[in-house]
Amino acid sequence: MAAAAPPPPPSEPIDPTTLQTRKPLGHPLFSRIRLATPLDVPHIHQMAVFERLTHLFSTTESSLSATLFPNPATTPTPPPFHTFTVFILEVSPTPFPPTSHPHFTPILKTHHLDLPITDPDRDAFQTCSNDAVVAGFVLFFPNYSTFLAKPGFYIEDLFVRECYRRKGFGKMLLSAVAAQAARMGYGRVEWVVLDWNVNAIRFYEEMGAQVLQEWRVCRLTGEALQAYADK
Amino acid sequence: MAAAAPPPPPSEPIDPTTLQTRKPLGHPLFSRIRLATPLDVPHIHQMAVFERLTHLFSTTESSLSATLFPNPATTPTPPPFHTFTVFILEVSPTPFPPTSHPHFTPILKTHHLDLPITDPDRDAFQTCSNDAVVAGFVLFFPNYSTFLAKPGFYIEDLFVRECYRRKGFGKMLLSAVAAQAARMGYGRVEWVVLDWNVNAIRFYEEMGAQVLQEWRVCRLTGEALQAYADK
Repeated sequence: MAAAAPPPPPSEPIDPTTLQTRKPLGHPLFSRIRLATPLDVPHIHQMAVFERLTHLFSTTESSLSATLFPNPATTPTPPPFHTFTVFILEVSPTPFPPTSHPHFTPILKTHHLDLPITDPDRDAFQTCSNDAVVAGFVLFFPNYSTFLAKPGFYIEDLFVRECYRRKGFGKMLLSAVAAQAARMGYGRVEWVVLDWNVNAIRFYEEMGAQVLQEWRVCRLTGEALQAYADK
Repeated sequence: MAAAAPPPPPSEPIDPTTLQTRKPLGHPLFSRIRLATPLDVPHIHQMAVFERLTHLFSTTESSLSATLFPNPATTPTPPPFHTFTVFILEVSPTPFPPTSHPHFTPILKTHHLDLPITDPDRDAFQTCSNDAVVAGFVLFFPNYSTFLAKPGFYIEDLFVRECYRRKGFGKMLLSAVAAQAARMGYGRVEWVVLDWNVNAIRFYEEMGAQVLQEWRVCRLTGEALQAYADK
């Protein structure tokens, strides 16, 4: 008499325009945001090079290592979030195991994509765990507002690799920094955008940011800065 | 026969247009730039209040103390220059004694003013040493450039009290930060300026800074930031 029994309740919501059950899941992709380690430096370097497209870019893996992960025996090394900090975004076709970290519990998310992503640089960005590849990063550090008498975060770099764009990963990275700031009781998250980049500006405004129209960044660098060394 | 002896060589250079000896010294004023201590918080607070002229300003001495000079027993406290750092500018009618400090040797300078300065708030800004008063401050902290793979400094606040302005003290404070950056091998010193403040922009350009015209600061703050806390 099983045939007479009512059908089991659908596990997916029913689309009223077709009265059919939606296709479940599409192509699942699993993502994780975690604190970077010194092992991530080659990937951070590759992404930073890619972002610049200029022969003026002279950053090396070794200069990134020395400044982002200095030797604690010779250089003061505050804990993550109290100095230069990098979140790494990884994606994988299989779920990430839950892990914990004394300073930051990784953020895990499952995505359902209409089409699978073909990553032409998969081999170059593979990590040791779980078929995962690095898909992006965000580099940030504390700033301070005398107006609020509170620290905040300044985002220096936010990068998602080309084949992973327009899928919400940029928003996920920026949200991770904002959530961390809010949890720490910090007052602001700031970054800069080029004034002609209307798509980026719209994206940032949708995320709740204001664009400060009247302020201009002043920069003292190169020989002009070096000239002060002996003054 | 003293009258017949040649006159002693002038100790001041001779002005050829008058053939007279220049008036020596005018009104001497001695200045010192040193690292701030927790004892400076009331003066930093007063200057920060003065700078803002707004009822929205809610910073207190206690919130400044807690964030600029946190309790090392409960909060990681990197050494000066590796976190939020304040230089205090003091002035005095008598010379400052030479002092040293493990992280920063104070900068001493002697000024010769045409007219003495009347400081209407002298009592409020007096320090314990040497008839000195606090005349200004600069608050800065490390930033980071992925392009250079080097830290730099970001100047959040530079303030000279009204009666001490237009005498080179702002330049002295900014130069002190630039010199420290150059000595530490840092790559940049950055700050922001309002686009209509043409006097400030001219001053910064004369000091060797570029004004980046295309970049805009984005800021996520208040409730818009707090909304990310639980996401």
